This record gives sequence, structure tokens and C-alpha cells, in this order.
Amino acid sequence: MDSPAGVLWGVGVGPGDPDLLTLKAARVLSETRLIAYFAKRGRPGNARTIAEPHLRPDRQELRLEFPVTVEVPACDPDYRRQMDAFYDAGAAQVAGHLERGQAVAVLCEGDPFFYGSYMYLHDRLGHRFDARVVPGVTGMSGCWTAADAPITRGDHVMTVLPGTLPADALASRLHTTDAAVIMKVGRNLPKIRAALDAAGLLARAVYVERGTMDQQRVQPLADRDPALVAPYFSMVLVPGGGRGR
Amino acid sequence: MDSPAGVLWGVGVGPGDPDLLTLKAARVLSETRLIAYFAKRGRPGNARTIAEPHLRPDRQELRLEFPVTVEVPACDPDYRRQMDAFYDAGAAQVAGHLERGQAVAVLCEGDPFFYGSYMYLHDRLGHRFDARVVPGVTGMSGCWTAADAPITRGDHVMTVLPGTLPADALASRLHTTDAAVIMKVGRNLPKIRAALDAAGLLARAVYVERGTMDQQRVQPLADRDPALVAPYFSMVLVPGGGRGR
Repeated sequence: MDSPAGVLWGVGVGPGDPDLLTLKAARVLSETRLIAYFAKRGRPGNARTIAEPHLRPDRQELRLEFPVTVEVPACDPDYRRQMDAFYDAGAAQVAGHLERGQAVAVLCEGDPFFYGSYMYLHDRLGHRFDARVVPGVTGMSGCWTAADAPITRGDHVMTVLPGTLPADALASRLHTTDAAVIMKVGRNLPKIRAALDAAGLLARAVYVERGTMDQQRVQPLADRDPALVAPYFSMVLVPGGGRGR
Repeated sequence: MDSPAGVLWGVGVGPGDPDLLTLKAARVLSETRLIAYFAKRGRPGNARTIAEPHLRPDRQELRLEFPVTVEVPACDPDYRRQMDAFYDAGAAQVAGHLERGQAVAVLCEGDPFFYGSYMYLHDRLGHRFDARVVPGVTGMSGCWTAADAPITRGDHVMTVLPGTLPADALASRLHTTDAAVIMKVGRNLPKIRAALDAAGLLARAVYVERGTMDQQRVQPLADRDPALVAPYFSMVLVPGGGRGR
């Protein structure tokens, strides 16, 4: 069976283990010939790597390659302009296929509507086409499961924080939450560590890299050399303590 | 094939649509004869209802029925005692099967380590037995997908709040976050609505009931009669605005 003509699928492929795709995501990929995915220059694309065992042998691939943006800080208006132009061009390519009646499945790490790149296509195409989203297991669920660390219970408050926040903003938010997930770790680890220390939470913090993937790594954050840059698939977890009030 | 002897599985069954189980969860359920689940008196059990299409015809079922606790407020020490005794007894039943070499799959709505009841068994049994958790798509992912509402992008901060918090605590936390998910809506809707109004967010808030299920319902919170009690599977979403800084 094939996907209905001209449908745009946003397919969450989960946290990393290809066995953690949903039944629905696997079925959409088996029924859709054209898949699209984002990738950095010279890389295979994270979502494509996760989904690969489920892709059709006769698939066509539309690779949407990010412009070289690492050199330009995200707060720079030039970064915005480059990224907007990139998403506009990608949306135009996808729209061309949809207009010809072809279904397109856009692969997305984790869950598409939770920090996913797919939503930049959804913004541009969702009102013009039949856009359907398949939610996925988030990277954070994969990481706290990998760490054997129940994150929230009872009446816990949980806060998801980007590691790009200033140290004092991180510390004050960590102070007022029961549980925390810190994403976008990368080069921000020394700052994140300092903020956790200031909030009295360093001893509870867990560092997880490539949760649910083959090269998974879990360690107390306090044991990790903060000078090491963390890879894309990494986060810091602070599991909620006690009974949850 | 059968599950390895004596393994305790905590199986996330996702937000409601049986098609949103992961491939791994469906396989574990096809390989495990004894399933356990929590349920309220007189109810079939939410996780069991979601998982039912994937259960073996020759399964055995261990129903763990919550004591009648609605009459006792959650802050009452008597509630704690009753619930602790209930989880102790459930864990002892499950342990009996594991000790005899039987594998047990405990069904859990959403993701087991995110507010899941399974973790109360994991606390009691995880150190004594080979306990393995299968993460699932959370209820909140199901709801923001059902509402066609991308929740976070860029450097957004997201806060998950229980609707049981006092109104002023809710309002002040809503003030300082980009995106919010409010769980445990039930009888707390008038208070939640007032807190959103105080934080200037009522116009952006979306009410979602039974997201991804057959009787799914999505509406602007401002349009909903606050006197109506919300069912168990309901939440309020405040999608992050703008570009995410």
C-alpha cells in the first residue's frame, strides 16, 4: 500500500534505537517512497541513520543540507536570514513533490513538535497541504530510560532548559524546579555544571550521551571532565527527588 | 519466542492510539504471557485498554486495583500509608511470579519514567530483579500533536506543571516559561484558567482531551466551560510563541 497522494508526513523516529519507532511511523515509512531529512554537511543525518532499517529499498531521498552556520552565532541576524532562506528553499522543494501528488515523509529525531526541525516545514506548508504528524518517543525519554532514572512522579514540576541560557538564568530556574532536563549541552557543559553547583544539584545530575543507541554512555555529571565537548545526542538530567510532594 | 525468564518489563504503551506503541513494546507484549496493569475500581484500566490489540490471546492478567483513595486528599498521611501498602502488596505479587522464573510485563500509559505508576514497582523490585524499561510516546506528545500545536523550538524553556499547584504558584511559573504543559487537570480547571489569565496566557492556551484516541477533543481553553470536570486523559497546553529567541 502507498501513502495517500500528496500527503506531507512529519515522522518522529524516536531517540535513537530503531526499535523505538512507533508502529505507525514504521508503517508510514514502508508506504512512502520519497523521504526527506535534514543533515549537516558531511554527515549522514541523524534522523536518517535512526530510520534506515525501516526505509524502503526503492526509496527516493531528498537531503536538506543545513548551510554552514556554526561559524555564525545564533543571535546574529545573519544566522536568522540564512536559516530562513534555507527552510524556505527546502519547503519549496518539498512543495514541488506534493503538488505533483507525491507523498513526502520528513524524518525527524525524537518527536517532531518538540524542538524538531520538521516544524519549520510544517509552518510553511501545513496550511497548503494535508500535513500529518506522527509523534515519537523524545530524546529525553530515551535518556532517562537509559540512565535508569525515573524523572518525575506525583506532583513534581519538570523544566526543560536549553544549555544556551546564561549561567545565572540556568541556576535560578534550577532552583525552582523538582526535576530538570538540560538540552543543547555541546560546549555549554562547564556553564551547566557551574549552574547545577550553584543550585546545589550537582550531586544529583546525570550526564547521558547517545541514550538508547549502541554507543550509549551514562555517568554522574560530577565525574565527567567538563572540558570535553558533548556530542549532539547528549543531555543532563536532574531526576525529581522524594515522593513528588 | 518468549521473554527471558524472570524479567520485569515496564512497558510504555503511549498516549492512546494503539498504533503509537513502539515496535519494541509491541514485541515485548507478543513475547510475554503475564501482563500486569493498574486500574481503578470498576474500570478496565487505561494502559490495558490502549495495549489490548497487542496482547496475546493466551495471556494471563494480573490486575492491580487501586484502593479507594479519591475520598482521601493526597496530602493526608493516611493516603500515603494506603498507597504505600498497595504498592508493597502489588510488588510482592509481581515478585512471586518473577521468582518462579516467569516474565512479567507491566503496562503503563505514556512513558513509564514520566509520572508513571510503574515506577513504584521499579523502586521496590528494580534492585532485586532484571528490570527493563521500554520508553513510550508521552501523553503530552500525543496531545500537542492532536492539537496541531508545535510546543517548543529553538531556545524555548518548557515547564510541566501539575494542575494541583496553588493558583499563585501556577501563575508565577507560567509567567517565567516560554511553553507550558499542565497535567492533572480534573477539577482544577477553574484555578488553571485563572492562573493563565493572570499570566496573560489564556488566549494561547489549548485544552486537549483524549489526544490521539477515538473521542479526541481539542478546543481553545477560553471556549471551554470551566465548570465541566475534565477526564483523566486531558491537559492544557501553552505552545511557545515566536521563534524561540
